[in-house]
Amino acid sequence: MQLFLIGIGSGNPDHLTLQAVKAINAVDLILIPRKGAGKEDLADLRRDILAAVLTNPATKLVEFDLPVRDEAVADYAERVNLWHDAIAGVWAENIGGAEKVALLVWGDPSLYDSTLRIAARLSPAPQITVIPGITSIQALTAGHAIPLNELAEPVTITTGRQLRDHGFPMGVKACVVMLDGECSFQTLPQEGLHIWWAGYAGMAQEIRLSGALAETGPKIIAARAQARAEHGWIMDIYLLRRRHDNI
Amino acid sequence: MQLFLIGIGSGNPDHLTLQAVKAINAVDLILIPRKGAGKEDLADLRRDILAAVLTNPATKLVEFDLPVRDEAVADYAERVNLWHDAIAGVWAENIGGAEKVALLVWGDPSLYDSTLRIAARLSPAPQITVIPGITSIQALTAGHAIPLNELAEPVTITTGRQLRDHGFPMGVKACVVMLDGECSFQTLPQEGLHIWWAGYAGMAQEIRLSGALAETGPKIIAARAQARAEHGWIMDIYLLRRRHDNI
Repeated sequence: MQLFLIGIGSGNPDHLTLQAVKAINAVDLILIPRKGAGKEDLADLRRDILAAVLTNPATKLVEFDLPVRDEAVADYAERVNLWHDAIAGVWAENIGGAEKVALLVWGDPSLYDSTLRIAARLSPAPQITVIPGITSIQALTAGHAIPLNELAEPVTITTGRQLRDHGFPMGVKACVVMLDGECSFQTLPQEGLHIWWAGYAGMAQEIRLSGALAETGPKIIAARAQARAEHGWIMDIYLLRRRHDNI
Repeated sequence: MQLFLIGIGSGNPDHLTLQAVKAINAVDLILIPRKGAGKEDLADLRRDILAAVLTNPATKLVEFDLPVRDEAVADYAERVNLWHDAIAGVWAENIGGAEKVALLVWGDPSLYDSTLRIAARLSPAPQITVIPGITSIQALTAGHAIPLNELAEPVTITTGRQLRDHGFPMGVKACVVMLDGECSFQTLPQEGLHIWWAGYAGMAQEIRLSGALAETGPKIIAARAQARAEHGWIMDIYLLRRRHDNI
């Protein structure tokens, strides 16, 4: 079996690459998780994309319910492992005898995404082809029209939890924070940092704020809460940069 | 004036997004550097892309010679500054009175690219729109079908020079190394590291090697030298990951 993991970008249907369009039209079966992350907007996005670019009448679409994590399992890594096992099982059931199968992956399959780890559980092992997609990091920097890094400088990509537990990453002047449900920038010393923030980066409802962290942080917290109340969910991302060479 | 900085991906013409195709066809003028990085393959890629997707007969293409850096200027930052000034000057000359202008940027305009910094020198300041593109990082991980980061772990993007000067980045188990003309992984302690390497990531001539650094490093050095001799140039990138929790 050939399995295509197709990055579809971060919410703008036009993030789709020509390579993704070709792959979508080259497979027998596309697996679509129903209300995966509890975010109907994302499920709709997958349907909109397929409505816009799928022209091969032989391609079958199969929707499936994503298993939920068993919160009774106390250990985080074990809980995720069991969940991934369950998802791989549901994939296998729905793939049946199909030869060329695709999954549409939010952003890019390489970045804070588990599709590759779940695919590694399939037996017999499929031949995996990854089609890269635009990430929310790229949507963030494009929206603000800023570079990710200063000239030839390193940058770290990290998570809200890492920021809370370990502070601003060592050895770098810039970091991107993802998977942060708690505005973890609040836990840092506020002086000397600049923030570029986006909610729904790449999507039609994208909102952006930027400025010195001390002044902009509270505005972000308020804007985030309001947008979350309005849409029922939010996904956000930000870049923090030290304003001085104080590593 | 509206200036569109369009990420075109990392060498595969099919990396182009639908958004990029629309932007290419919406502008009056596209500026194309001739033999920019001394790499005729890259100039050809831009021409191939435009031949494939530009359908607006009103769009004018203007090729220009990219100024060269003045190696007589000893200070690196100053040399780059003057060079960017010169490029902005050449852009302005060629833009003339055009209202909507585009530049096709290798990879994504946010990552180790100076187009945004050069655009900031234009006067009057243009209205800048950034269209994100697939980076060579994404081409690297897609080619190897690997995630960039372990589950919820941070990752640092850095340069060959940084790796030589500062060693393996602090506080992370994984790092991507770009802009490395010297196989700088040689300067690290070789034990406990795994490497995923690609030359020409994303392009038709892509080559890949991966494995324990101690065994794979020498193979990469040999393959890189051979490919460089064959093609006359090489661009490469790699991901290093610690195999143990020895941060």
